[in-house]
Amino acid sequence: MTISAAIVGGTGYTGVELLRLLAGHPQVSLEVITSRAQAGQPVSAVYPNLRGHVDLAFSPPDPAVLAGCDVVFFATPNGTAMEMAPALVEQGVRVIDLGADFRIRDLGVWSHWYGMDHACPALAAEAVYGLPEYGREAIRQARLVANPGCYPTAVQLGFLPLLEGGLVATDTLIADAKSGASGAGRVPKPHTLLCEAGENFHAYGASGHRHLPEIRQGLERAAAQPVGLTFVPHLVPMIRGIHATLYGRLRDPAVDLQAVYEQRFADEPFVDVLPPGSHPETRSVRGSNMVRIAVHRPEGGDMALVLAVEDNLVKGAAGQAVQNMNLMLGLPETLGLQGISVLP
Amino acid sequence: MTISAAIVGGTGYTGVELLRLLAGHPQVSLEVITSRAQAGQPVSAVYPNLRGHVDLAFSPPDPAVLAGCDVVFFATPNGTAMEMAPALVEQGVRVIDLGADFRIRDLGVWSHWYGMDHACPALAAEAVYGLPEYGREAIRQARLVANPGCYPTAVQLGFLPLLEGGLVATDTLIADAKSGASGAGRVPKPHTLLCEAGENFHAYGASGHRHLPEIRQGLERAAAQPVGLTFVPHLVPMIRGIHATLYGRLRDPAVDLQAVYEQRFADEPFVDVLPPGSHPETRSVRGSNMVRIAVHRPEGGDMALVLAVEDNLVKGAAGQAVQNMNLMLGLPETLGLQGISVLP
Amino acid sequence: MTISAAIVGGTGYTGVELLRLLAGHPQVSLEVITSRAQAGQPVSAVYPNLRGHVDLAFSPPDPAVLAGCDVVFFATPNGTAMEMAPALVEQGVRVIDLGADFRIRDLGVWSHWYGMDHACPALAAEAVYGLPEYGREAIRQARLVANPGCYPTAVQLGFLPLLEGGLVATDTLIADAKSGASGAGRVPKPHTLLCEAGENFHAYGASGHRHLPEIRQGLERAAAQPVGLTFVPHLVPMIRGIHATLYGRLRDPAVDLQAVYEQRFADEPFVDVLPPGSHPETRSVRGSNMVRIAVHRPEGGDMALVLAVEDNLVKGAAGQAVQNMNLMLGLPETLGLQGISVLP
Amino acid sequence: MTISAAIVGGTGYTGVELLRLLAGHPQVSLEVITSRAQAGQPVSAVYPNLRGHVDLAFSPPDPAVLAGCDVVFFATPNGTAMEMAPALVEQGVRVIDLGADFRIRDLGVWSHWYGMDHACPALAAEAVYGLPEYGREAIRQARLVANPGCYPTAVQLGFLPLLEGGLVATDTLIADAKSGASGAGRVPKPHTLLCEAGENFHAYGASGHRHLPEIRQGLERAAAQPVGLTFVPHLVPMIRGIHATLYGRLRDPAVDLQAVYEQRFADEPFVDVLPPGSHPETRSVRGSNMVRIAVHRPEGGDMALVLAVEDNLVKGAAGQAVQNMNLMLGLPETLGLQGISVLP
Repeated sequence: MTISAAIVGGTGYTGVELLRLLAGHPQVSLEVITSRAQAGQPVSAVYPNLRGHVDLAFSPPDPAVLAGCDVVFFATPNGTAMEMAPALVEQGVRVIDLGADFRIRDLGVWSHWYGMDHACPALAAEAVYGLPEYGREAIRQARLVANPGCYPTAVQLGFLPLLEGGLVATDTLIADAKSGASGAGRVPKPHTLLCEAGENFHAYGASGHRHLPEIRQGLERAAAQPVGLTFVPHLVPMIRGIHATLYGRLRDPAVDLQAVYEQRFADEPFVDVLPPGSHPETRSVRGSNMVRIAVHRPEGGDMALVLAVEDNLVKGAAGQAVQNMNLMLGLPETLGLQGISVLP
Repeated sequence: MTISAAIVGGTGYTGVELLRLLAGHPQVSLEVITSRAQAGQPVSAVYPNLRGHVDLAFSPPDPAVLAGCDVVFFATPNGTAMEMAPALVEQGVRVIDLGADFRIRDLGVWSHWYGMDHACPALAAEAVYGLPEYGREAIRQARLVANPGCYPTAVQLGFLPLLEGGLVATDTLIADAKSGASGAGRVPKPHTLLCEAGENFHAYGASGHRHLPEIRQGLERAAAQPVGLTFVPHLVPMIRGIHATLYGRLRDPAVDLQAVYEQRFADEPFVDVLPPGSHPETRSVRGSNMVRIAVHRPEGGDMALVLAVEDNLVKGAAGQAVQNMNLMLGLPETLGLQGISVLP
Repeated sequence: MTISAAIVGGTGYTGVELLRLLAGHPQVSLEVITSRAQAGQPVSAVYPNLRGHVDLAFSPPDPAVLAGCDVVFFATPNGTAMEMAPALVEQGVRVIDLGADFRIRDLGVWSHWYGMDHACPALAAEAVYGLPEYGREAIRQARLVANPGCYPTAVQLGFLPLLEGGLVATDTLIADAKSGASGAGRVPKPHTLLCEAGENFHAYGASGHRHLPEIRQGLERAAAQPVGLTFVPHLVPMIRGIHATLYGRLRDPAVDLQAVYEQRFADEPFVDVLPPGSHPETRSVRGSNMVRIAVHRPEGGDMALVLAVEDNLVKGAAGQAVQNMNLMLGLPETLGLQGISVLP
Repeated sequence: MTISAAIVGGTGYTGVELLRLLAGHPQVSLEVITSRAQAGQPVSAVYPNLRGHVDLAFSPPDPAVLAGCDVVFFATPNGTAMEMAPALVEQGVRVIDLGADFRIRDLGVWSHWYGMDHACPALAAEAVYGLPEYGREAIRQARLVANPGCYPTAVQLGFLPLLEGGLVATDTLIADAKSGASGAGRVPKPHTLLCEAGENFHAYGASGHRHLPEIRQGLERAAAQPVGLTFVPHLVPMIRGIHATLYGRLRDPAVDLQAVYEQRFADEPFVDVLPPGSHPETRSVRGSNMVRIAVHRPEGGDMALVLAVEDNLVKGAAGQAVQNMNLMLGLPETLGLQGISVLP
C-alpha cells in the first residue's frame, strides 16, 4: 500500500522536517508541497539537504490536488488549516494540522490566545488531540488530528504518570521549559538571529505563552480536575531540542517514582525512561521521535523532579504528525520513524 | 594609594578574569600570579587577550612574596586556600578566597560535600561571606573573605527580598538554574568539549550539587528560619552567564513585588531591577559585574517568579572578589568594575 | 576638552558598538543618536548592556542639532551619508562615515557596486580613507573620513608589508576571509538566523563582493601598481571576528618575513605581530581595537602565508572610527580604545 | 546475506559514527565493539542516542572473536591497526583502517610524520587507499583498505578533475580548509573545550599538518607529476563539517569548469556538483556521506575556485569506511548510506 500525502505550507522548519521524514517513509508517496511565496522553486534549492531525495517543486495550493490525497498535513500559520480542512475532511481526506487551530477544545479560550474567531467550530469539536501516548485509539478513528505543540508534548508526557496516578498536589505544578531557536520558526525575527540568540540565555513569555492553555487542558484531562500550573519557557542558544524540567509536590513521598514511570511507558515505542540518576540530553533525541525522561526525588524529599527531552521539530511537531498518520492509516506506528540521532 | 595584589593559582578561568579586572583597576598593582604547572610561562602566552596589558609570567608560589602584598586572591582548587591562608592572615595580608574553603559555616556540612577535613576551623569561623548586598559592613572589617559561588550569588540575590520580607512560604522554594560552560572550569573534561556541550542542553547534579548547602545557608540566614529548597542546575551551550529562574509561593498575592525589589536594591551599584514585564538576558551582563533581575507574578496568581542573570566569572567570581577587595581596602566599591558588556 | 559627538543611524551593530566605545571615552560627550524607526525609545531598551551607561533615547535626525556637534558619525545604510555629510562639512563639523559612500575613489566603480549615482562627487574626492596605519597624517587633516570596511581593514593590514616592500608577485594574491555573523548586520535575514548560520559554514559572494574593489584600491595604492586579487569571504558560526588568511608568492624566499612585519608595525598601537609559529585567534581581539598578525612560510617554500584577526565591529568599524576621531581632533590616538578582550 | 562486523576502538567519534551507520545497515550484524578502557559498559551508556538501537557492551579486544568476523574496522589511535591487522588479513578477514597506518605509501614519509617505525611494511605495500571515486576497482579486490583522512577526502575530491585533466598549474595549489571540532576527537584537550573553541576561529598547523603528505600523495597520483601544495587547516566553532576552499591557476581560462566537474562525477553516488553560482553549506551534508562541490571562476579570471563540503565523520571517516565495506563485500555501494541530513 502506498499512501499519497500532501504538505500545505512547507517552507518552514516543521515543513522541511516533514519532508525529510516522509521522503524516508517506506509507504508514503509525497505528491505535493504547497507554498504561495516560493511556488515554482525546487524544494532542494531552499533545503539543499534534500537534493537527490525530494524532486518536487513548491506549488500554489490547489484544492482539487489536495482532495486527491490520502492525507494532508498543514504546516501553516495559525488560522489557515481551519479554513481549508473542512472541505478536505468532507471528501474523506485524513487531515493532520501541525498548527494550533484544533488543539483547544474551549473555543473561547482559543480565540483569546490566538486573536481570531474560529472558522469551523463543529470540526473543532470533532478533532482529536494527537498525543498517542494518551489517546491512541481515538487517533486511529480520527478524520482530523490536532497535532500537539512542542512544549505541550514534552510537558504533558512528563507529568502524565504523576497526574493519572494522583501522585502530586495539582495546585502548584511548575514547568520550567527550555527550547532551541528552531521553535521560533524560519521567518526572520531579530531575537532569533545568531547574533542575538547566540551566547545568550533568557526566559520569555513569563506572563503568558500560547502553549499554556494547551498544556493545562491536557493536564486537567489527565488529572480529571483543575490544575494550577506555572509555565516558564526559555530560549537556549542551540537549534533543536526541548528540555522540560518539571516540579510537583508528592502526596506520598514513599512512592517509587522510577517504577511508576517505567510501568506507565513500558509499551510506548517513543518514550524512553532512563535509569535512576540520569540526566537526559537534548542531543540524544536530535532528529529522532523519541522522548527521554528521568525522574528524581532531590535529597529524598517530597518534591518530584521530572526531566524530559524531545526534538521540538520531530516528536514536538513533524515526527509526531507522522506517528499520527501511521495510526490513522493503520500502518505500524513506528514506520519511518526509527532513524538514529546523529551524535555528536 | 596603590594596592599590591597577588593571585594564587591563576591559570583557570576565574584567574584570567581576575587578571583582566585587576589589569584595568586604577589603583592595583599586580605583583605576582602563581602556577606551579605553568611557572616561567608568560601569562599572555596562555591568554593572548592580555598581550600588551599584563607583562607577568607565572611563578611558583612563594610565601614571602605573597606575605609582602596587601591582598592575596586564591583562585585555587578547593583545599588549597585553607592551607596557605592562615599564615598570610597572621601577617596582616587581606585574603579573598574564590574557592569554597571558607563558605560554609558548619564544617561538618563542608566536610560532607567537599570530602576532606577542614585545615583551619578557627579561621573558617572568622571568615566573612563576601556577598556585599547582604553584609557589606562585615566585609569592610574582614581579614578573610569567602567569595560566594557563582550559582549561590544569583540565587541568593534573587530570593533575598522575598525571604527578608517573609513574603513566601519557605518550605518549597525552587531554583532552576542554568549556567554556561565556563562554570566547569578550564581543566579539560569530556562533557565540556564543544562537541559534547554544543547544541545540547541537560540538567546535572539533580540529586545534589555542592552549591546547594551554600545557597541554603544564605537563604536561611535571610529568612531567619530553615528553608526547603530544590536546586537544579543545567548546562547551557554558551561560554558565560548564569540564569536563575526562581519560584516561591507568595503568602500574600497582593504584595507589590516590583516595588519590593526596586526598594531593596535601590542603593546597590551592581543590582539592576528591570522594568515590569522584562526578561533579563545573560549577554546583557557578559563581562560585567552587574546582576539584572526581573520579577513576575504569572497570570496574577500566588507564584512569585524571579529571573536573575549574572556573568558567572564576574559577579559570580572574579568581579565580586574585586568588589570585596574594594570594600576591604576602603576604596570606592565600584572602582575598576564599570566596563560595559560587549553586545552583540 | 570635551568633544560633542552624534551618531546618525544608531540601531545597528556598528551603532551600538560606537555607543559602547563613546560612552567609555573620557573626552567625549555623546549628544544625540538618531533613528527614525525607533525615535523616542531609550537606547538601553534596545541594548540592555547600556543600562546605567547611556541615558539617551533615539531621536529623529535634526540637521541643526548635528551641526552643533564637533563630530558626527554615520552608521547608516549606504547612500545616506552622502546626502547629509556635505552640509555638515560645510559648517565645520568633522564627519566620519562608517558606510561605504566615500571609500572608493573611482566613482564609476562605486556606482557599479552600490547601484546608485554618487550625490557629492566633490566631497568624495576630498574624503580621506581612514586606515591610520597607512595614512595617518592625511586623517589628522581630514574634514571627512571614509572609515574602511571590515574585510578591507584586515586584508589590507595583512598585505601591506608585502606590497610596500615589493616582496610578492602582485598578480595572484589570494584573500580567503572568514567573518562572524555580526558583519551581516542586525536587520533580520534568513541566512543569519541562529538556525541557519549556527553549526554551519559556507562561502558567499565568491563571484564578487562589494569589499573587493575597496580592497583592491588599497592594495594597488600600497603596491603602486595593479594587483590581481581573489577574495573569497566565508560565514563563521560565531558573532564577532574576522580571520583573513592571505597568500602571496614571494619574489625572494630568503626574505625574513617576521622581521619585515615586526619592523613595519613596530610603532603601531593597534597592530600586534605575534611570535613566529603563532596562529592568532579571533577571540583574542573580541571587543578590542587590536589586529593580531602572524606570518608563516609553509614548509620553507616560496609562499608567504599571513594570518590576521580583528573584531569586525571594532577595528573593522566602530573602533577604527574612534581611532580616526582621536586623530582628527588631536587627541591621543588610543584614548578610549584600551579595553581588554573578555576571554573566554 | 548478513555480514558480521567488528569495531576495534569504538569510544571515539569515528567509532560511534560507525556504530550509528552499521546499526542502520540492512545487511550488517555488529558482533563486537572493543574498548579496553570502557570494557563492560553498555555502548548506550556512553552514547545515549544508541539506546534501543545498539545493545552491545564494550569488550576487551579478543583476537579470536575478531578473526571470526567478515570485516573488522579499526577506529584506533595511529599505530594500533598495523599491529593487529596482519593476523586478521591472514585469516581472511577484510580489514578497514580508519586511522593513518596504511595511508602513506612512502614509509619513510610515514615515519617522519607519525613518529614511529612501521610494523608491517609488506601489508602497507598491499593496502589499497580507500577513495572510491578514484580507484573503485582496487577497493573491490582489497584485503586491507586504508580509509582516507577527513581533510584528504575533501581536498582530493575537489582537486581531482583539475589535476586529472591537467587544467591547472601544479606548483601553486592552495587548500584553505576549515573543520568542525569533532575532527580533533573525543579525548579532552584544552583547545576543543566549548569555552576555547566556541565563538572563536583560528588556523592551526600552518607550518605542517599530518594530512599534508597524504593529500600530496593523492594529488600527485592524479596529476601524474609532483605538485606544490599549501595546506592551511582552520578550526570552526561547530561540531561537524569540513569546508575546503581550493585555488588553482588555470592553464586555459576558457575551460568550462562546470561541465568538467559535472562530467567527472556524473556517476558518483556521493558527489553532488551544485549548479553554477552555488556555495555549498556544511550543514547540507551533516550526518550524510555526500560531498557537495561548487566551482567558480572569480571575475572570469584565470583562478579556479572550488568549494567542497563533507561531514568529516561520515564521508571523511565512518561513512566512507562503510562505502568501502560495501565495495569489498560486493554489496550495493550506497547500502546503509542514504539517510538524509537533518536540517536545520
